[in-house]
Amino acid sequence: MRFLIPLISSSVSSGGNRVASRLLNALSAKPQRSAVPSLFNCLPPSMAASEESLRKALAEKLSAVEAQGNAVRALKAAKASKPEIDAAIEALNNLKLEKSSIEKQLQAAVSGGDGDGALSREAFRQAAVNTLERRLFYIPSFKIYRGVAGLYDYGPPGCAVKSNVLAFWRQHFVLEENMLEVDCPCVTPEVVLKASGHVEKFTDLMVKDEKTGTCYRADHLLKDFCNEKLQKDLTISAEKAAELKHVLATLDDLSPEALGAKIKEYGITAPDTKNPLSDPYPFNLMFQTSIGPSGLNPGYMRPETAQGIFVNFKDLYYYNGNKLPFAAAQIGQAFRNEISPRQGLLRVREFTLAEIEHFVDPEDKSHPKYPEVADLEFLMFPREEQMSGQSAKKTFLGDAVSKGIVNNETLGYFIGRVYIFLTRLGIDKNRLRFRQHLANEMAHYAADCWDAEIESSYGWVECVGIADRSAYDLRAHSEKSGVPLVAAEKFSEPREVEKLVIAPVKKELGLAFKGNQKNVVEALEAMNEKEALEMKAALESKGEVEFYVCTLGKNVPIKKNMVSISKEKKKEHQRVFTPSVIEPSFGIGRIIYCLFEHSFYTRPSKAGDEQLNVFRFPPLVAPIKCTVFPLVQNQQYEEVAKVISKSLTAAGISHKIDITGTSIGKRYARTDELGVPFAITVDSTTDVTIRERDSKLQVRVGVEEAASVVKSVTDGHRTWEDVWEKFPHHTSGSADD
Amino acid sequence: MRFLIPLISSSVSSGGNRVASRLLNALSAKPQRSAVPSLFNCLPPSMAASEESLRKALAEKLSAVEAQGNAVRALKAAKASKPEIDAAIEALNNLKLEKSSIEKQLQAAVSGGDGDGALSREAFRQAAVNTLERRLFYIPSFKIYRGVAGLYDYGPPGCAVKSNVLAFWRQHFVLEENMLEVDCPCVTPEVVLKASGHVEKFTDLMVKDEKTGTCYRADHLLKDFCNEKLQKDLTISAEKAAELKHVLATLDDLSPEALGAKIKEYGITAPDTKNPLSDPYPFNLMFQTSIGPSGLNPGYMRPETAQGIFVNFKDLYYYNGNKLPFAAAQIGQAFRNEISPRQGLLRVREFTLAEIEHFVDPEDKSHPKYPEVADLEFLMFPREEQMSGQSAKKTFLGDAVSKGIVNNETLGYFIGRVYIFLTRLGIDKNRLRFRQHLANEMAHYAADCWDAEIESSYGWVECVGIADRSAYDLRAHSEKSGVPLVAAEKFSEPREVEKLVIAPVKKELGLAFKGNQKNVVEALEAMNEKEALEMKAALESKGEVEFYVCTLGKNVPIKKNMVSISKEKKKEHQRVFTPSVIEPSFGIGRIIYCLFEHSFYTRPSKAGDEQLNVFRFPPLVAPIKCTVFPLVQNQQYEEVAKVISKSLTAAGISHKIDITGTSIGKRYARTDELGVPFAITVDSTTDVTIRERDSKLQVRVGVEEAASVVKSVTDGHRTWEDVWEKFPHHTSGSADD
Repeated sequence: MRFLIPLISSSVSSGGNRVASRLLNALSAKPQRSAVPSLFNCLPPSMAASEESLRKALAEKLSAVEAQGNAVRALKAAKASKPEIDAAIEALNNLKLEKSSIEKQLQAAVSGGDGDGALSREAFRQAAVNTLERRLFYIPSFKIYRGVAGLYDYGPPGCAVKSNVLAFWRQHFVLEENMLEVDCPCVTPEVVLKASGHVEKFTDLMVKDEKTGTCYRADHLLKDFCNEKLQKDLTISAEKAAELKHVLATLDDLSPEALGAKIKEYGITAPDTKNPLSDPYPFNLMFQTSIGPSGLNPGYMRPETAQGIFVNFKDLYYYNGNKLPFAAAQIGQAFRNEISPRQGLLRVREFTLAEIEHFVDPEDKSHPKYPEVADLEFLMFPREEQMSGQSAKKTFLGDAVSKGIVNNETLGYFIGRVYIFLTRLGIDKNRLRFRQHLANEMAHYAADCWDAEIESSYGWVECVGIADRSAYDLRAHSEKSGVPLVAAEKFSEPREVEKLVIAPVKKELGLAFKGNQKNVVEALEAMNEKEALEMKAALESKGEVEFYVCTLGKNVPIKKNMVSISKEKKKEHQRVFTPSVIEPSFGIGRIIYCLFEHSFYTRPSKAGDEQLNVFRFPPLVAPIKCTVFPLVQNQQYEEVAKVISKSLTAAGISHKIDITGTSIGKRYARTDELGVPFAITVDSTTDVTIRERDSKLQVRVGVEEAASVVKSVTDGHRTWEDVWEKFPHHTSGSADD
Repeated sequence: MRFLIPLISSSVSSGGNRVASRLLNALSAKPQRSAVPSLFNCLPPSMAASEESLRKALAEKLSAVEAQGNAVRALKAAKASKPEIDAAIEALNNLKLEKSSIEKQLQAAVSGGDGDGALSREAFRQAAVNTLERRLFYIPSFKIYRGVAGLYDYGPPGCAVKSNVLAFWRQHFVLEENMLEVDCPCVTPEVVLKASGHVEKFTDLMVKDEKTGTCYRADHLLKDFCNEKLQKDLTISAEKAAELKHVLATLDDLSPEALGAKIKEYGITAPDTKNPLSDPYPFNLMFQTSIGPSGLNPGYMRPETAQGIFVNFKDLYYYNGNKLPFAAAQIGQAFRNEISPRQGLLRVREFTLAEIEHFVDPEDKSHPKYPEVADLEFLMFPREEQMSGQSAKKTFLGDAVSKGIVNNETLGYFIGRVYIFLTRLGIDKNRLRFRQHLANEMAHYAADCWDAEIESSYGWVECVGIADRSAYDLRAHSEKSGVPLVAAEKFSEPREVEKLVIAPVKKELGLAFKGNQKNVVEALEAMNEKEALEMKAALESKGEVEFYVCTLGKNVPIKKNMVSISKEKKKEHQRVFTPSVIEPSFGIGRIIYCLFEHSFYTRPSKAGDEQLNVFRFPPLVAPIKCTVFPLVQNQQYEEVAKVISKSLTAAGISHKIDITGTSIGKRYARTDELGVPFAITVDSTTDVTIRERDSKLQVRVGVEEAASVVKSVTDGHRTWEDVWEKFPHHTSGSADD
């Protein structure tokens, strides 16, 4: 997953602003600055304008208050008449009220037009996270040793949810699509990660407290400074505010030098000690280790699972009968040695990824099952609409593909499948959007890239990346390993083909462009036929031509002796090519965290004296599908409970018996808090009640039928509404409410 | 998993000899030497005796041949008569024949009484491993970069088998036993692994080539030398052979110095260069890394998953309603930076463990479900029978527990559950034994320990360890973290208890025993009531007493001022204690490899011109349950195949359609080699055939019924025999055979 879903710092954003994929940026050389949006672009235009005018109004009002204050003092000094002084004071007070009102409006504007929103989001998160930790969905790892930042355990219910999510992922993607699943080690030798670019580029910029040596992420300090200023200091000028916002918007594109200069300019110091900071320098985020005892073979804990698939391409292609397209998949741990992890469960140092590499012929990116998803309608947020400050809109996937907004059918197919996957898990479809990467977020080789973003209390969180990475990865490994990772299309009859041959003359290019030679060569080779023939014609007529090299961001002069362009005829029996890869990559931990937030709600207890917590998990992901309670402690009822438990086991329904003497209401509350969808209460030896968690409705069902009713609903063969219609209702007001 | 199942070098043994758990030895201070068995103890006495006498006979015969040779030469020199010389030559030839016959017998004896056995085991393994790698069950990791020793990928069918094995493990242990599953990170801070003893003791002894710096495991070099001498050099004396065997048997107990001395004595040099070797020194087998950017927080990739459970004991106990017993479980990756991995798929640097920690009251190790397993009968190999040179015998588990051979019911229960687990997977019950650890293999704190060993082409392989580790782990973490990891039994009424208080006087003990003080303190505290009261009496009468400290292997003198022993009366409302833990720990990769070997066989093709490979996986673990073949390429049949495929998907049966035009026989052979149990061949639009892999028998079933028939057999609701009885047989001799 080069899109680093669970890795990206700013993948959490409160407005419509962009998620920058830093590795991508790093790998993609210099993005064109003109494509970088300012925050103003992303906010609805009206709001951005109103904020600007409010800052101006506030500044004016402050001057007016000061002037009127001076006027009052002057009147007093001149011993003016009381009515005169009183009138002046009243005017001053009115001005102060107006100032205060503008301040409030501005405060609201800077916190996203919703002054209480941030607060209530914080409170909601606190309630959800408290419940999650108290019921052991999560446990801070190594807690008795005071833990390690960025490492969390899944406790029993969390672990059950995770294993349900992974089982469904395997069912939905691997089995239904006949993908080739592999399982590669986490320990990875350096050569592999050099080829992939991680050794050189997988870095964050770090600064050190010059006295204590404490490390900080440079961009986080600058970001915090800007946000703090913008939100808390209402007296800054509109110009200053615009500048800070521009810094925020371009944060991920700043060079170490530019970032260091900003830190110096703003006088930012170490947050804990106020000591001066070092210049920013890159810190590689991979956990490094050494393979074998010699100390001579460096290795890393993999930062993604994808490389294990790429290096196996040849074998997997053979396994698939040397046919394209096919997809390989892998679920496994990945690691990222964060400089200073924040955002609790969203930014961790070890996490589970589930990645798919779908290999296709670059000349045919159609997908046979695409029609199955074309009619889906959901929130999409294309590049153009982000740039023009709009927000995500409900769109038919088929329209986005046919209009060319989504690059190709296969990419579109996976976007649709991801949508189905996430919403079946229980992600709220109104808080899920597919956001296209902006030009500067994408690597130069990528054809198109969309993130599934889920809205949480932290803002929009990038949870799945779906990218068309063209042939980049296979080419990189072919080059480094010397093993050609290619596919072949065999022709039924040999074909005479006219081939465009672009042969850059490396020696001449090297003399002319030195260190940039490689960029120029790549750009020349990447020309399509039309461009190449135009260049050929221009070179022949003029001897020299200006050529734009996107990875250098500028034009360079190409002379006739630097490249030979020709068309040659050949008989070919097959076409050999490097497949393109389309990569849907899932940050499982982030999806689960967002699912927890989307599932969490509170409701008053029957007595109304407390708020009870509920997780509305669909049966598919609920940690346990059903609980069985004897209403009172009584041997007969316990026997019945055991009989039902046996039939549930036989039906493959995970469940738990609770025979404690606790009141039935408390037992319901306990299981609601674990998100258990159904409870069977044994209050007779013939019939039992089945209670649904969210509606709290209960039906009466015969003992021998109870397990199969629960099974039919948890399997999705019928809905609770069907059950409610079919069975007699339980009305005798159980202790629940 | 302190028993390090997938980690242990000598866990592979060709005879009945022991598997030594090195960490255990290391942690258990000095094992008593008298308990160390020699190899002679482990071989059947007759065979050991015959080998010894054969060596003697061979030495005698060699002398006789030499003497007779001299005699012939003397006769020739003395120009003796032709008949005289001929007679002497004939006698010489007879002696040579006899020598040669003894050599053959000896050769057979040293290769385990079965001269061809080792060879055929090698050939079998080669055939199985070739098939496994060709069909991508395994792929050497990072193969295009020439791989890394000890790292393997699971390719598509291997990955499917692994995920089936893990799903069944979760079903059989976690769900059926209501265990609390957790999921902790691999990255582990040093403090945790210091407490567990891994930082200090998790080492192998290493030697370096003094010129090239190449590293070797010291014990491996010594072992190879001894084995080579014993097997290839038939001229060594019986005394020398005995010495070498003693070295082999005590290999794991040798100190670095003793190991170094042996290497010098035998003149062992670096295998590749024949250069001299360094002295042996310990190399820590954990992959080390650094957590966070400062470089100040060392961490390791976990060597086992168990520690993640122990550090969470307090929360898990609370989650379980503060009740014992309960079990926690974890499936995950573990890592071991082997010095120089050998034995292919059995000894790897990264592997999946599945571990259970079952916490019990040390005063009550009964188990409510124990009766369910007591009647199981399988191969058990108790300590006493190993020591007296017998072999494993079929034993009722209930007998072993009631006779006290297995320490307690809970340990017995898990042994039984492991037996059921392994045999359901397809492990041959005749090649599975439960071997008790010898005294010198167990840590001093362990109450009892059994390994499930599976016989493979490498010999008996330790695949599951089932140990009663007493309170060791929780105590170690309580001590280091300062957080008491204890349980409490609440009394319904306060009890007056008389408590034995053993208070070692550390200062006096320190003065007297210096570095051994800790061992003496622990031994004193570990006395039971009877021992303590005896000591008290002796100290009062004599003032000094001899006290055996097992971890020092000797008696020490204890004086009256060194310990106070008393009985005190107290009223107590609860009993607070550190729970014991019983730990079944599964090396998933090793189990899968053995399963592959047990499932693999070959059979001649119909034409008899080649051997075809088959894996007889039970449906539970088969990578795919069913294939669907249209008999010939034909649209009608392909439509039927699609209909059947849909019903299989609906029934949750993993399957694959093969519409290639390949002959049906070849398609059967292809899926047999993947271990697919059933094939549905579409040869009409109304009926199809279902073929069973091992019997190759076929029945005819209606199209609409095909999926449900396959489902009923793969789910275990009926057997193939039932199906064979119920449905008409297909007799028209398909292309298969």
